[in-house]
Amino acid sequence: MDGGATTQLQSSQLAREISKGNRRALSKGITLVENDRERAPTLLRLLRPPGRAFIVGVTGPPGTGKSTLVDRLIEIYRKTGHRVGVIAVDPTSPITGGALLGDRIRMASHTADRGVYIRSMASRGWSGGLSRATSQVIQLMDAAGFDIILLETVGIGQSDIEVVSVSHVVLVVLMPGLGDDVQVSKAGLMEIGDVYVVNKADMEGADSMVVSLLGVVRGMKPRSPPVIKVSALSGEGLEKLQVAIEAVRERFESGDLELRLRSIRGMIVETAKWTLMERLGQASQGKVEGLARQVAGGKLAIDDAAIRLVR
Amino acid sequence: MDGGATTQLQSSQLAREISKGNRRALSKGITLVENDRERAPTLLRLLRPPGRAFIVGVTGPPGTGKSTLVDRLIEIYRKTGHRVGVIAVDPTSPITGGALLGDRIRMASHTADRGVYIRSMASRGWSGGLSRATSQVIQLMDAAGFDIILLETVGIGQSDIEVVSVSHVVLVVLMPGLGDDVQVSKAGLMEIGDVYVVNKADMEGADSMVVSLLGVVRGMKPRSPPVIKVSALSGEGLEKLQVAIEAVRERFESGDLELRLRSIRGMIVETAKWTLMERLGQASQGKVEGLARQVAGGKLAIDDAAIRLVR
Repeated sequence: MDGGATTQLQSSQLAREISKGNRRALSKGITLVENDRERAPTLLRLLRPPGRAFIVGVTGPPGTGKSTLVDRLIEIYRKTGHRVGVIAVDPTSPITGGALLGDRIRMASHTADRGVYIRSMASRGWSGGLSRATSQVIQLMDAAGFDIILLETVGIGQSDIEVVSVSHVVLVVLMPGLGDDVQVSKAGLMEIGDVYVVNKADMEGADSMVVSLLGVVRGMKPRSPPVIKVSALSGEGLEKLQVAIEAVRERFESGDLELRLRSIRGMIVETAKWTLMERLGQASQGKVEGLARQVAGGKLAIDDAAIRLVR
Repeated sequence: MDGGATTQLQSSQLAREISKGNRRALSKGITLVENDRERAPTLLRLLRPPGRAFIVGVTGPPGTGKSTLVDRLIEIYRKTGHRVGVIAVDPTSPITGGALLGDRIRMASHTADRGVYIRSMASRGWSGGLSRATSQVIQLMDAAGFDIILLETVGIGQSDIEVVSVSHVVLVVLMPGLGDDVQVSKAGLMEIGDVYVVNKADMEGADSMVVSLLGVVRGMKPRSPPVIKVSALSGEGLEKLQVAIEAVRERFESGDLELRLRSIRGMIVETAKWTLMERLGQASQGKVEGLARQVAGGKLAIDDAAIRLVR
């Protein structure tokens, strides 16, 4: 039996086990898509098409309490009997250690629960890699039978914001004292939220932040997103948040095609970006040298060299 | 005179004023490349080819004192009579306000000095946009006659790390207490440094961090980068750092082609990425819809849809 056939067989077995909900197989599958870029598509093609799991993106500036909120959402959906997968994307995790480690330890209280699966993902070593890997892990969790996937990312840069584009509903988590609306808006967060959450409701300025956010979202198309004041820590406002998420999930469960397509479009585009970057990496190896020499010699502008490189 | 010719004439005038070192024209040029993607290449083609200014990238995790260090480097190069341009890329700036604002205010002590030009850039609203805009601002500052360009970025994600690929020398700024080497290495920072700076030398653990970094860099090709302990605040170790930077700058000034090409290659590749992303944005508008429907119907895998999208 040649190597290709062996791999194919191994992938088939792995896909079958993942589809049965085998946690060890799921972990193995996730490790595979993280490390084996060649084999990952083969495995994913063997799974049922994505679109069964409901994906909730949770993003916002650092320190707004996203992990605590995710923790509450796990509890809420476990009470209603749903199986919950969590993907925590931490671009900062290799560095800031402390606080995030605390979060992970708290989330670890769920590890005895077989209906919860938590996976942390750090920034990949290649551009666009994180979005593609996230989209692949979602496909694996979906195939493994998780009903709800909570996707937590720190919304500090464009690439972090792009990661949540695969969600069916995006919660943007803010808190009092972040500065004026213009600043939050500059970070791109006001363009992507389906629900705005003002966390740490007990802090001074929470009410005025809600009022000013309501001013910003008013008139947004096709509908202005709700603004909900919560305290993830005390539980205040969480029921209201659940109602807002459930409103979207009901549309999803009733087969709303546009909602399903939104997530799939996000996955296709993010994967396409990665594909382009990988090709650029290959193409640039030899070609960029000659172009750089022409620029250095004053014979070519940078923008024109870039256009020739991608031709 | 038609619109195109007017624009051409305006660009010529602007390019001429920038080349004379006119600060207002430089500011106008930077605003133009930030906001007018169409016209930016026209302006840049009218400037002298890049490669005169020496570009120092300064990156590292948040809170390691990069801005204070940049401040010291400004002082050092002003004393030697060099004109210094600073580009501070703050993906977090719209949000964390406080600390960064303090940094900017401190840097503002240089604003009366006509030999220093400081520009902050926030994350752009499109993928890869920041790298391209940074590369364009460098071209403008270079043309305006700045001798040294200090490019400060927070090294937390892949895209932030890519921004410094246009530098002639990259300083990775670390500090004691960041966690073990493996963690710093995971963030990709151990692959990009030409000089490793352990800032906050007075903190406990500074010496042991230097020792463990020396262990990591030993054996790196083509030469192991220096590890230098400094206190940007007290000035300790700054002379040693200056010597390490000057060693590279001397190669640059003596016309080392490989060093010049390195920065140009970085600018070409980062601009090419942006070009690809923009094309993907255009191509995906109509095409992605049909592909998403095929994926939803189970007729196509995400990876295959992505490949068709970029075809």
